[in-house]
Amino acid sequence: MIVKQYQEMLGAKSVIREMFAYGTSRAKEIGYDNVFDYSLGNPSVTVPEAFTWAMTDMLQKTEPAKLHGYSPSLGIDNVREAVAASLRQRFEIDYIKDHIFMTSGAASSLAHAFRAVTEPGDTILTFAPYFPEYGPYVNLTGARLKVVPPDLQGFQVDFDKFHAMLTKDVTAVLLNTPNNPSGMVYSEKTMQKIARMLTEKEKEFGHEIYLISDEPYREIVFDQTEVPYPAAIYDRTITCYSFSKSLSLPGERIGYVAVSPKCEKAKLIIDICGQISRGIGHNCPSSIIQMAVAEVLDLTADISIYETNRNLLYEKLISLGFSCIKPQGTFYMFPKSPERDAVAFCRKAMEYDLLLVPGDTFGCPGYFRIAYCVDTQKIIRSFTAFEQLALYYQ
Amino acid sequence: MIVKQYQEMLGAKSVIREMFAYGTSRAKEIGYDNVFDYSLGNPSVTVPEAFTWAMTDMLQKTEPAKLHGYSPSLGIDNVREAVAASLRQRFEIDYIKDHIFMTSGAASSLAHAFRAVTEPGDTILTFAPYFPEYGPYVNLTGARLKVVPPDLQGFQVDFDKFHAMLTKDVTAVLLNTPNNPSGMVYSEKTMQKIARMLTEKEKEFGHEIYLISDEPYREIVFDQTEVPYPAAIYDRTITCYSFSKSLSLPGERIGYVAVSPKCEKAKLIIDICGQISRGIGHNCPSSIIQMAVAEVLDLTADISIYETNRNLLYEKLISLGFSCIKPQGTFYMFPKSPERDAVAFCRKAMEYDLLLVPGDTFGCPGYFRIAYCVDTQKIIRSFTAFEQLALYYQ
Repeated sequence: MIVKQYQEMLGAKSVIREMFAYGTSRAKEIGYDNVFDYSLGNPSVTVPEAFTWAMTDMLQKTEPAKLHGYSPSLGIDNVREAVAASLRQRFEIDYIKDHIFMTSGAASSLAHAFRAVTEPGDTILTFAPYFPEYGPYVNLTGARLKVVPPDLQGFQVDFDKFHAMLTKDVTAVLLNTPNNPSGMVYSEKTMQKIARMLTEKEKEFGHEIYLISDEPYREIVFDQTEVPYPAAIYDRTITCYSFSKSLSLPGERIGYVAVSPKCEKAKLIIDICGQISRGIGHNCPSSIIQMAVAEVLDLTADISIYETNRNLLYEKLISLGFSCIKPQGTFYMFPKSPERDAVAFCRKAMEYDLLLVPGDTFGCPGYFRIAYCVDTQKIIRSFTAFEQLALYYQ
Repeated sequence: MIVKQYQEMLGAKSVIREMFAYGTSRAKEIGYDNVFDYSLGNPSVTVPEAFTWAMTDMLQKTEPAKLHGYSPSLGIDNVREAVAASLRQRFEIDYIKDHIFMTSGAASSLAHAFRAVTEPGDTILTFAPYFPEYGPYVNLTGARLKVVPPDLQGFQVDFDKFHAMLTKDVTAVLLNTPNNPSGMVYSEKTMQKIARMLTEKEKEFGHEIYLISDEPYREIVFDQTEVPYPAAIYDRTITCYSFSKSLSLPGERIGYVAVSPKCEKAKLIIDICGQISRGIGHNCPSSIIQMAVAEVLDLTADISIYETNRNLLYEKLISLGFSCIKPQGTFYMFPKSPERDAVAFCRKAMEYDLLLVPGDTFGCPGYFRIAYCVDTQKIIRSFTAFEQLALYYQ
């Protein structure tokens, strides 16, 4: 009685995974340093030392039964309070502990948010380009993910298409700002317009529409770019956060769901997350990791390295004739493919040991993603490969 | 669009939770030391020091990007290999890495196992007395949990009732040995008979029936009791393990699924767990916790404390006239209630500040559970209360 749905998923090819497998085998042939693997969003910058100190200190001083004991199902109380306090201070919104649910990272934050506010059969809308895992994340809840085609002018939102797709079956809109893969931040204007449209459609349909805001890259922005905070703009916002990228802790699986206190059902949604947890076997992130993260809530890994990488890579690509909107944050860049078929382009790039991911994967054909969370020296060393690739397309 | 199913769950009363809330408020009145809270299975014995050393050592010496980096979706390779090696050695079964999927504890192990081998609408059978969270764990997958009534003679299996309930809609049988709440181990004879019955019914129905074996208490046994290993007896066994109890790490959420190599679809089931993971937002336990646990796989916390507790408490209860099957393991005892209504009995016990859980919660009315994973001195101090309670029922 092996479930067919999952068997089919196993059969489906993942371009990123293929790329990664190729990179690994190629590295064995020509050496790790000579493969320019830009395929994965795995943070390359070191976790802040304060996190390591906090962990070490707790292991030495805290009573083990307290340190490793069961966490309450919504998360450890003073950790939730610390997260609420940090959000209160940063965004001037009255979060308290009751609005916070601790999760084991972004995937888990989203798994709870989707289940809390959608029934099987409902539609969740998202905007291309988008993180491809949203597909399985949503589809396995029983809801359906539909993707609004991209705004190719500035990677904001194509409002005509959004309006047309915002039909009665939509109960949640999922967005990701700063955005993977475009590296763009949704502007205040974009966010305001989304909020207005949702408010209008809520009235028209007579049901709630939630905004699920996936913000793992919130802190990774450059040139003092302001990131409008969706929960400050639309009341029914469920903020899904992960510390994976900001603290370079992707393996520790730690994040949270924060429901805006201006959403009248905020506390109920958080309590429901605790029930969803039982069904999906979540039952809290690691207790020591919860406590350690609470000690470094307002720190980040050294983001300036990503900014250096962006500058180097962006200038090089532009000088080689690539067309690209300059990313405002994250550690991704999303240039236009010099040939229409980005899959063919990425295959060609592999010949120069450049591993890039075609935009098709992100619902945006004709573009490709560069994940530049790699060593700066490697970026510089990859320039020759980019030059040769550009030459091929001249 | 708040999902009704979860709202109803919130409304349902949990006896254990009520008990716990009462205990907390009562402790404020009369002091923590004077409330004899036997309601929760939260390990009281300290984690082995080797675990703390392993964590501290890794934090000092391992490169952060490796220590806190993304784990592959099935778990860190050498951790999976270490788990397989440990199982190979202990049980003489040819597990390899491919048969192991790392999970964030028992709830997560079960969440994956249920989804891998049952479709919505299927039935999963379990045996009373049983861990009450199995209800929501199973029901939220879309499958149904049905409970075979208890064998009150020895808390093994009532085979007549099991046989009658083993109908064509059953695709998995869930068991828990050593058992919460009875403290009993399913004997070799019991396990052999279950295996024979499943094999026979598989032929009759023409479909597979999986045995999902929940074994968080595997190491917590007394008097050199042998625990028959279900996967050694029935080929289609999915072993669900957690280190919460054996290593006293319940908050760290770490465990694994191991599929018997004798099960022809073992590797497929493990691969499918990786897909299920995407849908339920699991995406691996903490990487540092995976690595630390791999260093102490064959250690346990000091189990002898639980044995001391069992001996003290069992002898006291018997001397007071309680009727109880002597538990072979876990840190639970499941005596008969002196009045038919165990809920009324547990209410009465609360008057003596004894927090006990009625057997009704475990599908076994007329009994009550004592979770004796508490400080030994507290057990001794609680004797007066038990004496007074016994006196009341004389």
